[in-house]
Order: sequence, then C-alpha cells, then structure tokens
Amino acid sequence: MNTVEIDVAVVGAGTAGLAAFHAARKAGASAVLIEGGEYGTTCARVGCMPSKLLIAAAEAAHAVGRASEFGVHVDGRVRIDGHAVMARVRRERDRFVGFVLRDVEDIPEAERIGGHACFVDDHTLEVDEHTRVTCKSIVIATGSHAVCPDSYKSLGDCLITSDEVFDWDDLPKAVAVIGPGIVGLELGQALHRLGVRVAVLGRGGRVGPISDPEIRACACETFNEEFTLAPDARIADVRRYGDRVAIRRAGKDGSEVVEYFDYVLAATGRVPNVADIGLDRTTLTLDDKSVPSFDPSTTRTVSVNGASPIFIAGDAGNYIPLLHEAADEGRIAGVNAAHLARGMPVMPGLRRAGINVVFTDPQIGVVGGGLRAMKPGTFATGEVSFEDQGRARILLRNKGLLKVYGDLATARFVGAEMVAPAAEHLAHLLAWALQNGMTVAQMLEMPFYHPVIEEGVRTALRDLDANLRTWV
Amino acid sequence: MNTVEIDVAVVGAGTAGLAAFHAARKAGASAVLIEGGEYGTTCARVGCMPSKLLIAAAEAAHAVGRASEFGVHVDGRVRIDGHAVMARVRRERDRFVGFVLRDVEDIPEAERIGGHACFVDDHTLEVDEHTRVTCKSIVIATGSHAVCPDSYKSLGDCLITSDEVFDWDDLPKAVAVIGPGIVGLELGQALHRLGVRVAVLGRGGRVGPISDPEIRACACETFNEEFTLAPDARIADVRRYGDRVAIRRAGKDGSEVVEYFDYVLAATGRVPNVADIGLDRTTLTLDDKSVPSFDPSTTRTVSVNGASPIFIAGDAGNYIPLLHEAADEGRIAGVNAAHLARGMPVMPGLRRAGINVVFTDPQIGVVGGGLRAMKPGTFATGEVSFEDQGRARILLRNKGLLKVYGDLATARFVGAEMVAPAAEHLAHLLAWALQNGMTVAQMLEMPFYHPVIEEGVRTALRDLDANLRTWV
Repeated sequence: MNTVEIDVAVVGAGTAGLAAFHAARKAGASAVLIEGGEYGTTCARVGCMPSKLLIAAAEAAHAVGRASEFGVHVDGRVRIDGHAVMARVRRERDRFVGFVLRDVEDIPEAERIGGHACFVDDHTLEVDEHTRVTCKSIVIATGSHAVCPDSYKSLGDCLITSDEVFDWDDLPKAVAVIGPGIVGLELGQALHRLGVRVAVLGRGGRVGPISDPEIRACACETFNEEFTLAPDARIADVRRYGDRVAIRRAGKDGSEVVEYFDYVLAATGRVPNVADIGLDRTTLTLDDKSVPSFDPSTTRTVSVNGASPIFIAGDAGNYIPLLHEAADEGRIAGVNAAHLARGMPVMPGLRRAGINVVFTDPQIGVVGGGLRAMKPGTFATGEVSFEDQGRARILLRNKGLLKVYGDLATARFVGAEMVAPAAEHLAHLLAWALQNGMTVAQMLEMPFYHPVIEEGVRTALRDLDANLRTWV
Repeated sequence: MNTVEIDVAVVGAGTAGLAAFHAARKAGASAVLIEGGEYGTTCARVGCMPSKLLIAAAEAAHAVGRASEFGVHVDGRVRIDGHAVMARVRRERDRFVGFVLRDVEDIPEAERIGGHACFVDDHTLEVDEHTRVTCKSIVIATGSHAVCPDSYKSLGDCLITSDEVFDWDDLPKAVAVIGPGIVGLELGQALHRLGVRVAVLGRGGRVGPISDPEIRACACETFNEEFTLAPDARIADVRRYGDRVAIRRAGKDGSEVVEYFDYVLAATGRVPNVADIGLDRTTLTLDDKSVPSFDPSTTRTVSVNGASPIFIAGDAGNYIPLLHEAADEGRIAGVNAAHLARGMPVMPGLRRAGINVVFTDPQIGVVGGGLRAMKPGTFATGEVSFEDQGRARILLRNKGLLKVYGDLATARFVGAEMVAPAAEHLAHLLAWALQNGMTVAQMLEMPFYHPVIEEGVRTALRDLDANLRTWV
C-alpha cells in the first residue's frame, strides 16, 4: 500500500471539494484531492445546469403557445421534438461538466488520488486498498445523492430520480413527480410545458422553499392553473402494471383518483454521502441523520475529544445544499484546514445573506430565511400582487405575490418570500439590501426605473414602510 | 376674466406636474394644476408604456422564431397580425392612460384649470383668456414633444414621430428610423422583429445612451446581426416618391445605397415645451436652447434678479428625461414651491443614482453617468462578455458586454455600461450598490446565486477588483 503524508486531504472533487482544495493550496498547505466516483459536480451533471436547460426548452415551448395573445399566430402545429430537446440538454450539460473536468485536470496528478476514501482515524484515510493518507486535517466534501422512499422501489425501471432524468433520449408521455420541492417543481413544470402529462404530488403540503402560507397558496393556485400540483396528495397506492405505474390517491372532492404514468420521478430529496466513509472510526459527533455536527461559520466538525481536525462542506454537511453556498463552505473549509495544519487559528469565514430561487414560472424566491426565520411579534409585513403590476402586465407575466418583512425595532429589511416574475433578479436586489443592513426607508431612496418589475418591489416596500410606522 | 390667488401654480399635468401638485398640497400649500392639452403623461400616452407593449409583441414573435434551437418546432407559418398587435398596444396603453386620468379626476375641480398658461410676470400666469393666476411660486412642468428636422418635413404623411406611431392600426412594410437613440433603437428592433423591414440610421455615431466605445461597438455588432443599424449613415438624400420615401446613403464599401420605405420615423429627440409660455416676460435666465437654467438639486430656476420663485421639473427642464427622474423632480419642485410660498427654506431634494435602460434585446444599461462621467486617470475598468456566460448560454441569450468602473482612490464602484441580457435588472443591482457607496470588494461579498446572469456581473467585478489592486 502506498502511503502519503500531507497537510490537508480533501475527500470529494465536486463544487465544495474543488473549492476547498484550491483554498487550502492557496493558503500555503500541501493537499491531496481524493475522488471515488466520476469527476464533475452535482450542479453540472444532474443539478442546476441540466435542469435549467430543460426549463429553457420548456419556456420556449410556452412562449410559442402564448404568442397569439400578443398578435403573433402560429398557423400550423407546434411539434416538440423530445429527442432534440434532450439532445441539447445533454450536449450543453456535457459542456458544463467539461469545464469542471478541465479544472480537475489542471491539478497536478500527484495531488489527486482516485478511489473511495474511508476513515481509519481522525487523521488517517484509506483510499480503496491502495493508498493510506496521513494528514493534519481533512475536508469531507463527499456530496449527496438523490434518494427515493423504499415503498417505491418495487416500481423497478419505472422509478427514476433527478440523477437519471437528464439521460433520457426522448420525453415520456406521462410522469408523476413525487415531492414538490425545488427539483420536483422545476422538473414538473418543465415537463408539463414540453407536452408531458404531469402530476406533482407531495405529502404534508410543502411547496419548494416557501414558508409563508400566503405565498404558498399563491404558488399552488398559479401552478394549478397549468398542471396538477397536489402538495398533500394523500397517495393510497402506487403500483406497477406492465410498463406503467398506477397512482391511486384522494381527489379534491373526497373521491378517489387513479392515474397512469410512464414514470415516477422521485424528487424526494438528497442524502449526504457519509454512510460508507467510516465515520464510526472517527471521534466525530453525528446528528440524528448520521451527519457530522459542525459549525457553519468555520465548517469545523465537533469531536467528542474537543477540537476536531475534520471540516465538512457542501451537500455532505446538509446545511444549505445550494451551489454558491457549497463553494463558500468549500473555501472556508479549505482555508481553515490549511490554517490548522500550519498551526494557525481556525476563523469564521464569509457567509452571505440567504437567497434561494426556484426556476419555475413564475419563479419562487426566498431572501434571508424567509418567514420561517422571523420571530412572531418582531416584524411587520408589506406585500404586492403582480396581477396589476405594469411591467408584468405588459409582458403577460402578471402573476404572483411578493411579501417583504421588516424588523419593528430597527425598521430594517429582514427578508422576503415571493412567487413572482423575475424573482431570480428581485431576490438578488433584496439579498444585497439585506446583507447591507438597509432600512426599508433607505431602500425606498434607491432608484427604481420605469417600467420594471422592481417597481412591484417598491410597492411592497412602501406598504411595509407604512406598516412599520404604525407600530412605532 | 377670472382671477385666482394661490400659493403654488403648477403648469402641466404630466408625471412631473402631478407629482409637484400633490407634493405642494401635502406640504401645506394651496395649489392649482393648469393643463392646456390632453391629460395623460408622455410615459403612458406615447412613451414608456406603448413602446414596451410593442416590444413585448416583438419578443413574442422572436421567441417563436428561435424556439427550434431548443427542439420546439413550428410546422407551419408564423403570421404576425399587425391589427391584433397594434390593438393590444393601444388597448393596454389606454388602460395605463386611464390610471393617469383617474389620478387627475381625483383632484377637486376647483384646483384644476384647463387652458394654455402663459407668464405675465414671475408671479402671474394667464390661462387662455379666461383666468389670471397670481401666486407665490410656480412650477413649470410642461413636458416635451417629439421633433423632426425641417429637412424631413417635405415627406408629408410619410413622416411620423414616436408621438404618432402607436396610433397605427396595422404594421407597415418598411420603416426607416432616423436617430439611434433610446426610442429609435427600441422601436426599430421591435418593428423588425414584427416583420417590418427596418433601417435605423443616425448621424455622428451615437447609439442610445452609450458612451463607452467598446460597449457601443458590441451593440452595433449585435444589432446588425438582426437589422440594419448605421449610427453614422451619411444620408445623401431623402425624397418622397408617391406613397414611399427613398433614402440614398453611403453603403459600407463606399458604394451608394438607395432604399425605399413606407414611413420615415423621426426619433431625433424631444424638445421642452417652453417656447410659447411667455418666458420672455419673466426674469429667468435661459440656456442656449431657451430652457430656463436651474439647480437640479432644488429644481429652482435662476433669475437675473436673484432668488427665483419659479421651479422647473420633468422633460420641460431637459435635465434627465426619464419618468422616474421626472417624478423625483416634480416632488422636489412641489415641496420647494410650497416651502417658498410659506416662507420656509428651499432645500435640496433626493436625487438617486443614475440608471438608464434601453429595452432592446440585448438591453442597454447605463449606471451612474457611465463612462462619459469618469475623469480620465481616476478609474479602473472590469469587464465580462456574455458569450460564454453560463445562464445566458442556457437561455440562448449569450450576447453582450458589461463594463464596470471603479475609483482608483477609494476602490468604490462608480458606474457601468452594458449591452446585456437582463440589463434592466443588472442595472438596478448596480445602481443600488452605487448609491450605497459600496466598494468593489464589498460587492464581491454579496450573494450571487447559481446559475444566474448576475454571475456575469461578478466576473466583471472580479476583473475590476484585480485591476484596482494593480494600481494600489
């Protein structure tokens, strides 16, 4: 067996791992990057990028469908070429994956180890059965994988997850999407707009990252105008019949609905890849999901022996499973792992204002922690409907609702939730204002052009401003 | 003749005038609003709103045309129904105008005077020949009108301006747009995308509000992939033949081009409506365009006698002819006119960070004063091309260039110019950062989601940050 002695070992070459490796090297440590599976990030392979590509095709189809409302008529048939749609998705996806691979290839071979890493103790990893790595600190960046409930496993190849959907050569006819989280909503609406019969079914009523019940109601109503979204579907039975799957569930009026689908797409969440890396041979404290406990500001894990030499970043830590957060966590972990190895202090890194976007239409946006992060009695609310918002109406995108929250004590803006046109952009404007600690009054002193969707934000902020004043 | 004695008289019931009137009343003054023409703002009648409606139809047509690149095929003909396009434009425009009219109607009749106001002296106006208004202060908010050069006037009804174009019942076959300013670019591209043969012709090379030559070159190249944009067209002759107009001009290779059009759309600028309001009977100082000189921070005009009781706001002042600036100027003028009438001090009002957007595709955006406001040797530049920007490429909108400017002394962000996808949103994010006085390093600490166009902004800011550091 080969032996390697090094300052920092990074386990996993995804977004967080690559960031950690580069940050550790830049901070002056020696480091190795260990990858057991395919190179390429979750984001590029099966996440952000291919889903946005599928959505772009879906929006193109949708735009053709509604052009007549502007006076642009299609005299003929709109034909969605599933092969061509999926070919572009895969071609562009492969291009994005290629960038990641090139980034990996730029790392000297001596600093990369291929194989599955398993802990021997807090300072030692064994990679497959060929290499033993002894190091001063370790970054766990093993990512996550899509999971589906055991009860669906009997569906065999009729059951897929978002990790496989982008490998389709063609579009199926009917898909039941289980789980109206971010992935389920995005893929569900996109498939619907591409001519697939879709039902998005959930349990418990959750809709994406929304916690404000009024925003959730608006989202449900808006999406249900287009396709079936039942966040609390009360599924009685899921059963395979030949090539298809029958789902029996309670309908709206209490009756029973049975629908047949070609596929069940389980969008029921992702689980950190930490089950088979030998955490039981470390001194780490694990949470109730067997994920190492850690301090998000430093990414340092908690050891029963006190100071831990192990950091965790990205989806593996199950903290905020978003690309830009994974990159931040990776950087923080890499710097701190290097500092620890070199006898320097472990420090809190930069964490940014929270932002979460679902690329549906209208989009969903959450800024800060959304409503769920607010303490009752400490905040006021302002809102705007986009039904009559000028710019949204011009574009025939006048659907949605934005709610903004302000702190009663300081009159600062503290968060927002929305289902809104251009939410990806509005969320940035609001998240920057949040991180800047702006008061609502200061935000109202900022420029708003005309006619823009941002004028809707101003309406909501004016409402919030008035509501804050009545409490003073 | 009726006589009215009042604190504040506001001349003109457009965006600036209405804002001034309401602000003066709110500040405790008595006031009258005098309007000589139709009620309804430039923005709603002939400006922002109808142009954006026409553009929305054009984008719908364009989206149909490019859907096949996503795998969505139209088996048949795309038919642009000019009647339906223009009907929606006018219907929605009338709705927006209706909101303005309702705002006017909510003002008590005793506070409104219909007729053309003309100065008698600094404190007196005569409205038509029926009312004499004596007041302590006056706000000039008479707006502007589209003009065309005298040399085009022989074209008769083949010559139109943007003040008339939205009254078309149908779309013409071919239009020469004279003047590649904001209006010319927006209408030119929109008409082109709606199937009208278009040439946008200018003199001197100006393109919209762009002052950075690289951004201008990018805009020219990008738009010329779609339609003829010749910012320095060297027109030799414009002549009417029957129902059409022939334009003879120099072609690219020095040869001569003659093209025939149904209309010449003069988008050669707007002129303040101050020529026939009797300014010669006031003590005001006029600039070289016969517009009263004024202080933009207070909107107070300059009198040869010292302190002037006259304020000016909106297009009439020819300062920044944009709706949101007109509204700000109106408010400032109204408050200060009221303060002056009530013996209170005239104060600077809130002016916001500069922002200018052209709703072409890609859009044009200028933040702060753009490059033209920078002092040579005081700033560094960062840039990003959108050719390979991830989100832009996903959406097949990967065209454009963004340049950001930073102050060498303070490392603060000081402005930007761009031709870019989603520029209307990027410009807001950047303008807010500018008004907040953020350094480039602070901006890079803000959240950037993935995958979004804003990541392109980050690339440009990183470039700027590096360039600022090399100068330190």
